[in-house]
Order: sequence, then structure tokens, then C-alpha cells
Amino acid sequence: MENAMILEKQYDELLQLLKDKKYGILHGRLSQMNASDISEFLEEYVPQDGLVLTFRLTQKDKGANAFAYLSSEIQEAIIKGISDREVGDLVNELYTDDAADMIEELPANVVKRVMRNVDSDTRDLINRFLQYPENSAGSIMTAEFVDLKKNMTVAESFARIRKIGEDKETLYTMYVVDGNRKLEGVIEARDLLLSDHSAVIDEIMHTNIISVNTHDDQEKVSELFSRYDLLAIPVVDMEQRLVGIVTVDDIIDVMEQEATEDFELMAAMTPSEKPYLKTGVFTLAKNRVLWLMLLMISATVTGSILLHYEEAFLVVPLLVALMPMLTDTGGNAGCQSSTLIIRGMAVGEIYPRDILLVLWKELRVSLLCGLALAAINFARVLVVYPGEVQVAFVVSIALVATVIMAKVVGCVLPIAAKVCKLDPAIMAAPLITTLVDAGALLLYFEIARIILKI
Amino acid sequence: MENAMILEKQYDELLQLLKDKKYGILHGRLSQMNASDISEFLEEYVPQDGLVLTFRLTQKDKGANAFAYLSSEIQEAIIKGISDREVGDLVNELYTDDAADMIEELPANVVKRVMRNVDSDTRDLINRFLQYPENSAGSIMTAEFVDLKKNMTVAESFARIRKIGEDKETLYTMYVVDGNRKLEGVIEARDLLLSDHSAVIDEIMHTNIISVNTHDDQEKVSELFSRYDLLAIPVVDMEQRLVGIVTVDDIIDVMEQEATEDFELMAAMTPSEKPYLKTGVFTLAKNRVLWLMLLMISATVTGSILLHYEEAFLVVPLLVALMPMLTDTGGNAGCQSSTLIIRGMAVGEIYPRDILLVLWKELRVSLLCGLALAAINFARVLVVYPGEVQVAFVVSIALVATVIMAKVVGCVLPIAAKVCKLDPAIMAAPLITTLVDAGALLLYFEIARIILKI
Repeated sequence: MENAMILEKQYDELLQLLKDKKYGILHGRLSQMNASDISEFLEEYVPQDGLVLTFRLTQKDKGANAFAYLSSEIQEAIIKGISDREVGDLVNELYTDDAADMIEELPANVVKRVMRNVDSDTRDLINRFLQYPENSAGSIMTAEFVDLKKNMTVAESFARIRKIGEDKETLYTMYVVDGNRKLEGVIEARDLLLSDHSAVIDEIMHTNIISVNTHDDQEKVSELFSRYDLLAIPVVDMEQRLVGIVTVDDIIDVMEQEATEDFELMAAMTPSEKPYLKTGVFTLAKNRVLWLMLLMISATVTGSILLHYEEAFLVVPLLVALMPMLTDTGGNAGCQSSTLIIRGMAVGEIYPRDILLVLWKELRVSLLCGLALAAINFARVLVVYPGEVQVAFVVSIALVATVIMAKVVGCVLPIAAKVCKLDPAIMAAPLITTLVDAGALLLYFEIARIILKI
Repeated sequence: MENAMILEKQYDELLQLLKDKKYGILHGRLSQMNASDISEFLEEYVPQDGLVLTFRLTQKDKGANAFAYLSSEIQEAIIKGISDREVGDLVNELYTDDAADMIEELPANVVKRVMRNVDSDTRDLINRFLQYPENSAGSIMTAEFVDLKKNMTVAESFARIRKIGEDKETLYTMYVVDGNRKLEGVIEARDLLLSDHSAVIDEIMHTNIISVNTHDDQEKVSELFSRYDLLAIPVVDMEQRLVGIVTVDDIIDVMEQEATEDFELMAAMTPSEKPYLKTGVFTLAKNRVLWLMLLMISATVTGSILLHYEEAFLVVPLLVALMPMLTDTGGNAGCQSSTLIIRGMAVGEIYPRDILLVLWKELRVSLLCGLALAAINFARVLVVYPGEVQVAFVVSIALVATVIMAKVVGCVLPIAAKVCKLDPAIMAAPLITTLVDAGALLLYFEIARIILKI
């Protein structure tokens, strides 16, 4: 990506300015940059002892934005290096959700110092945010939005936006609340921009409001964004009072995070909190080894099935040679179905009530796939092992049966998990493979026993 | 999801109104609804013969929005049922990208009728959009944006927005162009709302513009959105002239689509164009069977390896019983690594240049995992098959070797694919499993031959 290379060159120049102590020029260059690029520069280029200095050289508001993107280690280093007053200014400038995220990761003594130096309002807000459950709407919302009253005119609304808008997360959706902060309506900047200046908010606001509760899961929030093409959604408490908003940029992060979690679960790993390159070797090993162990021990079942049919494969060793093809194909076929169903449920296209539809579809698909594979396989076995017609017959029949069984298991298990309120993503390739292996071998040797009469 | 149930009830009521011919009430109810809900109602509830009538009962602009969400079959049915004039009005009202998407799916004679009935400007735009490659920035952009000149004041800009803003896709990012339509700057509604009315655009616009080219891949566009928290991005042609914009709601769809594609590729399927429940059985079977066949045929290699070691397993049949555990664990371990690397590259956290870092990490992780698994497995084999110390020893050593080999294969192959400009997602579980199977069995029987002296 050419973009990445231009940025790298730019970071190297900035670093040189820092080393040469050309702080004036560095300050000027930083003020031209995006907050997320500044954050990357701080995170990956600036040495530990230059962090505080570089951070001080960025403008206050942009510095706070860049700070929000930093990893908790670098955040901690900066917090420890700046003065009490700077800590207060910085945290007051942060959006509440970013401040709460930071505080969750800081050691207790640093948290105390932070809390001592912020406004009492900010402190209360942060404390409230810290109480929302992880991955709830409350934990990803911000408290910085523009509220209007329904008797205001458009002109008065513009004046209010101009007055309080500076440090709000969005100026594109405004929220109309009554005296008790109950949400009465929503109005978009678009409506204000296109309406007459004398129009009253009450007449132009939308009352058909899409909102979420502080305790709703972030996955529900992101489904609503994607379904209704929202830029922001209001978050209300149990009494329908407006307490915050979630904006689309946070939802993009949520969507990426949820998809990554599903990818990890589906590959039999405990999802990790940090990016791969920043996760330690022990954490990576821990996230993987338990699942591997569980699956390894379940494979004991397959082992005993095989020993049970020892006689069959001692008589016809070719049966063993064809075994991996059969179990792998079964695993692959099952994994195709489970992936489609898991993903379909994750994006809200398939619901548990569709189970009969799905089963009927998978049965027909598996019959088509199974027959095609069996035909090719029959020919292949005869070419590679000439004369082994009976074995070719056995393995081809077993193949059809295995593909059908695998696809049924692959579509039923994720739906069953969903019904049991488990994450369907755990019913993915690794578990399906283990189950299908056992089933495939049972089918295979039973068919062999009947046809080959062993 | 309670939301889904409320909607279902609502749709049933609407359907009853349609059956009872209470069109006035139905019109009123439809005007209260969101475009995406209207589209779901048309798509899944209204019978074929009621489509045109229901569509006519929605307001013009909302009808066009809802139309854009519909599947191509329903779009075609509506287009065929409405008058030439209505076709023209509808397509003029659609955003260009939606119109182009629709036209790509319509049969040729219907396309002719559509093109005959739209404005010549719209026709030219649609024709231009149809030429952009699939999944390029050009194919997902819209041409409906607000352009400003740099000598305008804020007050003049507001006036222009009010005048031309009605049918623009966003009013929240405005684009400053010169006489040749070359992009000179970007200004957000936020800046306009907070600036003095007499300020001149030239002084407040941002000139450090993040833009993409019409031919850039949509994945690059979505990476920029996620990195810089954008709401819209300008799309320029080779001469840096502004031709369109991509908005965040389209990017959310792109992100979902790209993740789904990766899930499907990683489960050895050709990605499908439509949601699972709307894809026909033959298409589903076709998307799956080729990959299954390819993998099945590659398993021939594993079969010949096994026959090569026929002697070994005839002497010690227990070796066969432990085989599925070994190959499954190898497959799972490799699939964990490949998934982390594929996903890491997809979200821009890992680049091919990180290969040595990744390898070093995976080597240590695999040693930790391998040793832990081997220890447990050694104990397990001795418990299940008492006295088989040598076999337990063989399979445990093979296990460590297999896990290390699997993790190396799992991290190298996706990176190699990326370097060769292939989609790393094809180097996922199914292919890794097939390769690792062969390697694991080679290691296993060689180790057995040495230790058991067969």
C-alpha cells in the first residue's frame, strides 16, 4: 500500500526533528497531521523518553484525540510523565467512553491521581460509565451530544449548536429531550440545514425513534446501524432518559471486533483482547492449548471406533489408506455448512426458526455434492488401485453418507447453540470435524463389513 | 430479538390493510416507516400481484430509498409493472450507485426501457458508473454530493446547501473544487456550523485530503474509513478531478460483505452473491463441490503415504487408532495460526514484512502448545492402553513435531499467498488440514519406524 510507505517516510522525518531538538518545526508538522497518524507515530516510532515531550508538542484537542487511539501501556507512560494539571485537562478533553476505557486499564494508584485532577462532573460521568457491563451499549456510548428542546426554532438550534457544539462527538444528530431528560425526538443536521430558520423543532423532529438501552449488547447496536444506515443512535436508561449516544465510527470498531472474535472462536481459540503482534507468546499459547486439548481428548472416541474395526483393516489395508480422504471430506463438507449458518446468524439473515428451511436446503445440497464426489472418487480409486471395485464401491457409498451426515451436523449444531444461548461460532470446523470423523468412520466400516463381508 | 417481533406484527397488519383494500390507511402507515422496513415488507410479505400497488402507495423519495434495498427479482417485478413515466421518476430519484447496481441485474430489454425514460444526465452518469470494475471505489460511490468554491463565505455555503442539498447523499462533508472540478479541499458541516458566517471557505477548509481513486479496491476504501473514522471519502479520477463520494453506510455493507467472503473462502467455498436463504440449491452445491473435489483428490497423497507404511500399522494396529487424534490436532493447530494471520492481514494489523516476527512467535507458541499436549497425551494413552509405553512415546513426539510443523505451515502459507497477490483466505483450515495431514503421517510413521524398529 503506497499510503503506508508515505506515512513511514513522514514518521522518520518527524523522529529526526525530535532527535535534532527542532521542536518548533515538529510542532508545526504535528498540527498538520490526523489524530490517528499522530497516535501511530507515538506508539511505534517515538522512544519511551520522548513520549511526553512529543505529546506536549501536539495541540490540546488533537492530542486528546490521538491519546484515545493509543495502547494502554503508552497511555500510562504519558499520564505518569505529565503534570497533575495536564492530566486534568487531558481527561476533561477526552470523550467519556475513551476516558473510562483508559481508566479500566490503569493501575490503581494512577487511577487515583487521574480522578483527583478532573472536574467533579467528569468524575461522576466516568464512574457511571465504569459500571456498564462489558460490550454493552453503555460501555461504548459517549455522553457528549447536543440536546435541544422541542419549542426551539431552527435558528435557536443553530445558535445552541454553535455555543455548545465544540466538544461534542457529533453535530449531525441532535436529541430533543423534555425537562426530565426523557427522549422525545431526534433531529438531523440535514433537517435543520434544509428547513426554514423560523420552523419549530417540534414540527420537524422525528418521533419514530430507534434507540437502545444501556444494557443492550453491542451486537444489537451494530445490527441496527447496519439495518437503518444510522450515523448515531441514542442510548436510554430504564426510565427512557437519554444518557448517551453511540456513533458510527465506534460501531465500525465493534463490527471489526465481533467478526475477529467469530474468526477466532471458529478456529477453536479463546478470543484475544489485543492485536496478534502485541499479544505475548504465553497468552497466545493459553488461548489455544485448552481447545486443542479438549479436541484431542475427544478424538479418543475415534480411536476406539478404529480399534473396534481392527479386523477389517487388517484384512483390507486399503481401507486405512482411503480413510483420511473420507474424514477430511466429511470435515470440510460439515465446516462449509456450519460456516454459512454461523455467519448467516451473525449478520441477522438466518434465525433459529428457519431450521427446517435450512435442513431441507442442506439435505438437497449434500445429496448433490455427495453424488458428484462419489462418482469422481469411484473413478479415482479404480485408476489408482486397479481391480479394487468392491473397495471403491464401499468408499463411494460411505462418502455420500458422510457428506449428508456432515452437512446435517454442520447446520443443526450452530442453530442448537443459538437456541441454548451459546455463541454459535464455537460449533465450527474443529468441533464439527471431531464429531464428523467419528460418524464417518462408523459409517465407513459398517458399510465395509456388509459389502466386503468381513 | 423483540424488535423483530414487533416488526412482524406490524407487517401482518399492513398486509391485512392491503387485502382489505384500505389503501388510504396503508399509505398513512407506510409514510411513518423507515425505508429499510418498507423494503423488508415488500420483499417478504407482499404477494407478487400487490407489489406495484404497495410501491405506488409509498411516498416518492422514500419509495426510491426502499427500492434501493430490494433484491433484483423484486426490483424487476416493480419496474415491469409501473408506467414509463414512473420508471423515469424512480430512476432519477435513485442514487447513481444504486441505479447502476439495479441495471447490472436487469434483463437487456428492461434496461433499454429504463434508459429510454431517464434524464440524459442521469443516463450518462449511470453509463459511466457501469464501467468501473466490480468492488472498486468507482462502483460503490455516488455522484450526489455538495460542491463549494473556495471564495464562498460560510453564509453563502449554507445557502448553497439549502438550495441543492435535498437529494444529496450527505450534507456533512462538502467538497471544494476549482473550475476544472479538481479537488482543492474538504470542509465538514461541523466546521461550517461552528465558524463565523462571514468566514471564507478557503480559510477554514482542510487541504490535507484523504481521497481514493475510482479504481482503488473497496477494501482499501474501508481500511481508510476505519483508520481515520471518516463519514465520507472523495473519489477522484486519474486527473484528480472529483467524480463521486463513498459514504460510511455503504462502507458498513462493504465490511460485512468482505468479512462474509473471507468466512466463505476460509471454509473452502466460492463466495456467494446472495444471502444463504435466497441462494438456490444448485448454486450452493456448485459453490461447494469444486473445492471439496480438489481437496478430496489431494488426499490421495495421504493415502499413498499410508500404504507406504502398511507394514508398520499391520504390526502395531494401535498406530492406526491414534492417527485421527494426531492429524486432527495438527489440522486444528494449523488452522488456529492461519486464521490469526489471515484476519490480521485483513484488518491491516499484519503485513508480509512481519513474516520473521510472526514465525518466531509461532515457533515459541507451538513449542509450548506441543509440549503441553504431548504430556497430556502420553498420560492418556497409558491410561487407555496400559503398557503401551513405546507407542505413547512415539505418538507424543510426533505430536510435538506435528504441532510445530502445522503452525509454521499455517502462518507461512497465508503470507506467501498475500505476496503472490492471492487472497490469503484460501490458505485456511481445509487446505492447511490436507497438507498437515500428509506431513503429520510422514513424521508419525518415521518416528514409529525409528523407535519401534519396524
